[in-house]
Amino acid sequence: MTFQASEHQHVRYNPLRDEWVLVSPHRMKRPWSGQVEKPAEDILPSHDPQNPLCPRVTRPNGQVNPDYESTFVFTNDFPALLEDVPEPPASEDPLFQAAPAKGCCKVMCFHPRSDLTLPLMTQSEVRNVVDRWISEMEVLGPKFNWVQIFENKGAMMGCSNPHPHCQIWASSFIPNEARIKHEKQKQYFEQHGRPMLMDYVHKELEKQERIVCSNDSWLVLVPYWAVWPYETMVLPKEHVRRFTDLTPEQRDSLADIIRQITTRYDNLFSCSFPYSMGWHGAPTGDHLQDPNEHWTFHGMFLPPLLRSATVKKHMVGYELLAQAQRDLTAEQAAQKLRDLPSVHYKQA
Amino acid sequence: MTFQASEHQHVRYNPLRDEWVLVSPHRMKRPWSGQVEKPAEDILPSHDPQNPLCPRVTRPNGQVNPDYESTFVFTNDFPALLEDVPEPPASEDPLFQAAPAKGCCKVMCFHPRSDLTLPLMTQSEVRNVVDRWISEMEVLGPKFNWVQIFENKGAMMGCSNPHPHCQIWASSFIPNEARIKHEKQKQYFEQHGRPMLMDYVHKELEKQERIVCSNDSWLVLVPYWAVWPYETMVLPKEHVRRFTDLTPEQRDSLADIIRQITTRYDNLFSCSFPYSMGWHGAPTGDHLQDPNEHWTFHGMFLPPLLRSATVKKHMVGYELLAQAQRDLTAEQAAQKLRDLPSVHYKQA
Ligand SMILES: O=P(O)(O)O[C@H]1O[C@H](CO)[C@@H](O)[C@H](O)[C@H]1O
Ligand SMILES: O=P(O)(O)O[C@H]1O[C@H](CO)[C@@H](O)[C@H](O)[C@H]1O
Repeated sequence: MTFQASEHQHVRYNPLRDEWVLVSPHRMKRPWSGQVEKPAEDILPSHDPQNPLCPRVTRPNGQVNPDYESTFVFTNDFPALLEDVPEPPASEDPLFQAAPAKGCCKVMCFHPRSDLTLPLMTQSEVRNVVDRWISEMEVLGPKFNWVQIFENKGAMMGCSNPHPHCQIWASSFIPNEARIKHEKQKQYFEQHGRPMLMDYVHKELEKQERIVCSNDSWLVLVPYWAVWPYETMVLPKEHVRRFTDLTPEQRDSLADIIRQITTRYDNLFSCSFPYSMGWHGAPTGDHLQDPNEHWTFHGMFLPPLLRSATVKKHMVGYELLAQAQRDLTAEQAAQKLRDLPSVHYKQA
Repeated sequence: MTFQASEHQHVRYNPLRDEWVLVSPHRMKRPWSGQVEKPAEDILPSHDPQNPLCPRVTRPNGQVNPDYESTFVFTNDFPALLEDVPEPPASEDPLFQAAPAKGCCKVMCFHPRSDLTLPLMTQSEVRNVVDRWISEMEVLGPKFNWVQIFENKGAMMGCSNPHPHCQIWASSFIPNEARIKHEKQKQYFEQHGRPMLMDYVHKELEKQERIVCSNDSWLVLVPYWAVWPYETMVLPKEHVRRFTDLTPEQRDSLADIIRQITTRYDNLFSCSFPYSMGWHGAPTGDHLQDPNEHWTFHGMFLPPLLRSATVKKHMVGYELLAQAQRDLTAEQAAQKLRDLPSVHYKQA
């Protein structure tokens, strides 16, 4: 028997995290009798006077939201990071290390309407979102070493409010994921003289096995080392280090590619597809002036669904205690997403 | 203002994983309007003739389970790891690395009755489970470099069968979590000349801040760097490297401590407490003869619940893309668990 990636179990290496994933494609045949999730609410009101993210609504802290017409950003009423807190004393013991953490947490609404998600918004409305992300980075970047923009979409992803929004958590520290990617990209750059992810982009463009969609400036692919069933990465065709480096053309084009991938996601199981999504680029704050040539700006979509709108991949026992495991291969996932209609099922 | 860990946000270091966790205790005040889980089924039949894990039942592959009276182990009908598969060709490109993975996956029933979980079983029944874990390690250890024993408990943890059972996945490779712990414990041992986790045990015994319960041979504590709200570690009082090194007294005592901690867990929210649980010790296979003095055998419970039997901590957006974040401190979690009755609410 000769090895076939789509048939035979193997492990794959993630060079960005220095970790392996177990791929067991033969396990796709397994029946599922476990937990079934509640399907996402399909019909939402366009305005809900009880929802603290809607225009003109009074939030629990007494503040009244403006009658916003595009994006709207405010400081999270229950932030995980505050700017002004006393610092823990220096710890001598290597087993009991605490360190200061300062930061700020914002909420950003994408649109005044509760019933619109990114794929259902117009190109220029998504472009507004991109522009707002960048202007928030411009404000927070100089002050904080890391600014994490992320969207938790869907109740399944712990999202507690259906109004389309994302969060921005800025911190004095560089979080684990960012620190590891920083180190791994740096090592690669020192060894090869080129940014890891730009080499990766060029090779994926040659191979054409894992690309889902693309346009002038961006491509979306299922990374070779993907962990979540339909995980994707958004990568630039030309080297960009940070959100704030994008040209107006690249911003337009980013809005387009976001609409493309989120449309395909919704079409996969004909539902408002849940995911966690976010952006990584060169660190900011104290690192704003560093060369950071090893860094390539990129986005990630991490969706939990595996088989249908209600059956997800559980990252539990073996995954938590040993190693991530996936059933369908990255190539199979890419092909499924690629073959889907590019028009949203609600607009078809 | 002086710093107080129970009031002021900070980050803590996990020396076993070389990672930090963000602790934001002030965030406990946040209201929750997000997803509510289905409570665990409280009343289960003691025998279900449709359940492929019950005694005397015919499994989907046609095999009939024996009329087992204690534990029962069989090979998973849909294993993620097979023993005999072709190997991927050697990969030259650092960005597209695949490697061979061989292994085997077993299912182990704890007890013939479907309505008994570890805390509801007798001391000698849990001792049978411990003995069976060890005898499986003795069989699989010489053949595989890592043997992961783990229990996914509860539908919330992706467990697809309510009959009390665990899984054993043995692999030719050392999975990520094990490899990282191996390296970190090794570095500590080289620097300090003592096993990291034994130093940790002694310091925690002195501090008495995070210990939940203990007996002659074991203690259960919420680690200083815990990520899940009520995460605990089971640690030996004397240095043990592997499951197979345990004396009969330590095995008895382990059965006792497992009953103690799982009873407290069930009592926390008066429900059959969901978790992923598992054991880590020195690697086996090719590493069976290595000194492995740096390794301390230990258990981990990783439970998702945060506020009640139906509200869990979602490890999503920020956690997946940046860094784990927790609200209540490890000390607060330990105290809550410590203060609970030691008798199970169903048996009180
Ligand atoms: O083997 P099970 O119980 O069907 O499956 C469960 O545990 C496995 C090991 O942690 C996971 O890979 C699966 O995602 C989960 O649903
Ligand atoms: O801030 P939210 O949406 O209330 O909360 C959600 O996202 C946060 C950031 O990923 C997580 O820490 C929470 O566990 C999750 O429920």
